[in-house]
Amino acid sequence: MIKELTILGSTGSIGTNTLKVIEANQNLLKVKYLTAGSNAEELIKQSLQVNPKSVAITDDSKYLQVKEALSGTEIEVLSGREGILEISKQEDVDLVLNSIVGAPGLEPTYNALMAGKDIALSNKESLVMAGEIIMDLAKQKGLQILPVDSEHSAIFQCLVGEDKESVNKLLLTGSGGPFRIRDFSTFDEIKPENALKHPTWAMGRKITIDSSTMMNKGLEVIEAKWLFDIDLDNIEVVIHPQSIIHSMVEFVDGSIKAQLGLPDMKLPIQYAIFYPERKNIKWENTNFAKIGKMTFEEPDFKKFPCLKLAYDSLNRGGTAPAILNVVNEEAVYAFLDGKIKYTDIPKLIEKALSKINVTDDPNIHQILEIEQIAKEFIKIEIG
Amino acid sequence: MIKELTILGSTGSIGTNTLKVIEANQNLLKVKYLTAGSNAEELIKQSLQVNPKSVAITDDSKYLQVKEALSGTEIEVLSGREGILEISKQEDVDLVLNSIVGAPGLEPTYNALMAGKDIALSNKESLVMAGEIIMDLAKQKGLQILPVDSEHSAIFQCLVGEDKESVNKLLLTGSGGPFRIRDFSTFDEIKPENALKHPTWAMGRKITIDSSTMMNKGLEVIEAKWLFDIDLDNIEVVIHPQSIIHSMVEFVDGSIKAQLGLPDMKLPIQYAIFYPERKNIKWENTNFAKIGKMTFEEPDFKKFPCLKLAYDSLNRGGTAPAILNVVNEEAVYAFLDGKIKYTDIPKLIEKALSKINVTDDPNIHQILEIEQIAKEFIKIEIG
Repeated sequence: MIKELTILGSTGSIGTNTLKVIEANQNLLKVKYLTAGSNAEELIKQSLQVNPKSVAITDDSKYLQVKEALSGTEIEVLSGREGILEISKQEDVDLVLNSIVGAPGLEPTYNALMAGKDIALSNKESLVMAGEIIMDLAKQKGLQILPVDSEHSAIFQCLVGEDKESVNKLLLTGSGGPFRIRDFSTFDEIKPENALKHPTWAMGRKITIDSSTMMNKGLEVIEAKWLFDIDLDNIEVVIHPQSIIHSMVEFVDGSIKAQLGLPDMKLPIQYAIFYPERKNIKWENTNFAKIGKMTFEEPDFKKFPCLKLAYDSLNRGGTAPAILNVVNEEAVYAFLDGKIKYTDIPKLIEKALSKINVTDDPNIHQILEIEQIAKEFIKIEIG
Repeated sequence: MIKELTILGSTGSIGTNTLKVIEANQNLLKVKYLTAGSNAEELIKQSLQVNPKSVAITDDSKYLQVKEALSGTEIEVLSGREGILEISKQEDVDLVLNSIVGAPGLEPTYNALMAGKDIALSNKESLVMAGEIIMDLAKQKGLQILPVDSEHSAIFQCLVGEDKESVNKLLLTGSGGPFRIRDFSTFDEIKPENALKHPTWAMGRKITIDSSTMMNKGLEVIEAKWLFDIDLDNIEVVIHPQSIIHSMVEFVDGSIKAQLGLPDMKLPIQYAIFYPERKNIKWENTNFAKIGKMTFEEPDFKKFPCLKLAYDSLNRGGTAPAILNVVNEEAVYAFLDGKIKYTDIPKLIEKALSKINVTDDPNIHQILEIEQIAKEFIKIEIG
């Protein structure tokens, strides 16, 4: 039976890898909907290749370009935020893969669950901002949220066949980013081009900066908390610069299971799409003698305050992680635009968490409002 | 419900660790039978501690000592090879843990299966010598053979919840032993005291020598082939000197799972006894930052011909692995007794495999006869 998919955010790193996975499994998978932010060229190319029913592009100014390029086809073209939200509500698919970057991914996740769809989730912000709501909704509707992040996929794979009760601790590995061994006193001088060089993973700009500040690991900790229903105290970050072990689970008897291999997002994507089946398409050939060594360190919370702030926000609860996430996003974009210094990113987040009112037990609308509130805060702070 | 156990080979390294596991889970486990080779003091101590129904000691000359020491109890004392075999046939237990060292462990494994008992197997020679017969018998009787070796337990744990069809390769790790970086040209000079120093695991004398020659890894490859019903071509040995990763499984999608932790046999013993449950008793606390690094190398088949001979014997099939195993045992004991050189061990095995007639599709009796044939071969060779 052919599985029909929606890919939200199809022109990014995860989206393009997803299309490679689909191409390799084309007798089993069919793309029905695609959405993109502003990369019209790539969206057009993808559309002509996989012939979806509808596509949407967030950037209204690119609508005509896409519409025209696809005029010879039967593909419907939508645009703007409304176009994305419309596509996230479609019921005639089997799985929605959400790889939208950042806070804008939350509402589509919510919509897809409301439409009764299982989700392959790469948009970690859905769980960072509204973990309790999203997980409750999935549970209530009997739907699956399948992790696409390499770390969460690793944990998910390690948990296969194991009792939830027997889990003692999740060990989330992280490369430590490009500044792991850089002297902290020089962090002020970090420029976007320095931070955009990730040692082991090829990813989009936003997540690459987050990896360098370790906010990405912080967001992953929050994501893991909700995805695997585990106490924050039982989630540990282990620095592993080679990114071969993608994450681990420690069980109550002290046994540890790890999922590992050369870094390639196509594996967790394929695993999420076909779960619980493993498809006989191998993306990487891991040779341990060639790898030679793996090393491990403790994370440095002083050097990477963003990681600490993520833990703090989750401990605070309510809308605090949503505030952390959106202010971080805005700060990262401001840094990439040369408007603030690298070290201003955690400072802005810390300030936001102390200034912006935190709402306890928020509903989805209150969380969605955070985006505007946080943007206004940033506007005032950095002009 | 209390699980009643037989422990065959209770005074060795695995046996004593098993008793610690039982002590830690004493509200769930009860020892009913114990057997030992010649360590009367330890068998007496254990018997007074756990109060079994019967015990047996192989060494007839120690019978009276044990009998006398237990005269104030209701414990029955048997002796000699017959005593061991008698105990292995007892039906009033739930599980037989077989940690007898070497070829003498095979017949007890066979007896226990014939008696309808699940087996926690530490005696790898049962599968090395008669893998097909033992696995067929277990299958036919609907019994479980639960691995106690750390490597096989690791693989077994990695396979939980996974489809047999989705396994691509088993990656058996090995420390490489004490002579991994020693110059091959000096192997002639190796004395028992050098070979008895294992870098990471505390084990008995026979297995420690086997680790140094890598015959132990070879026997484990053969054991894995039968235990997990996988082609020899799909079993790979990875040298990992720190012994933190206990073994790995590669799946058809390229994903690899590993089971890891500080070396401690109590974990795989406990896992085998309670499988599929994990007990909330943690034997080791693994700290990755403290471990610091793990390294990996390819095995050196030239430097460690025993590993190559093990593969060869399994490729030959029939009684060849049994011949390999028994001749190795005799050669190792001869080396420990100062009768032969370290480098004579593989030479004797190679000679035996070319001189002793290999029987195809042997029955259990033909395999049991190998012990005598191989001992005679060794007697002629080294006098």
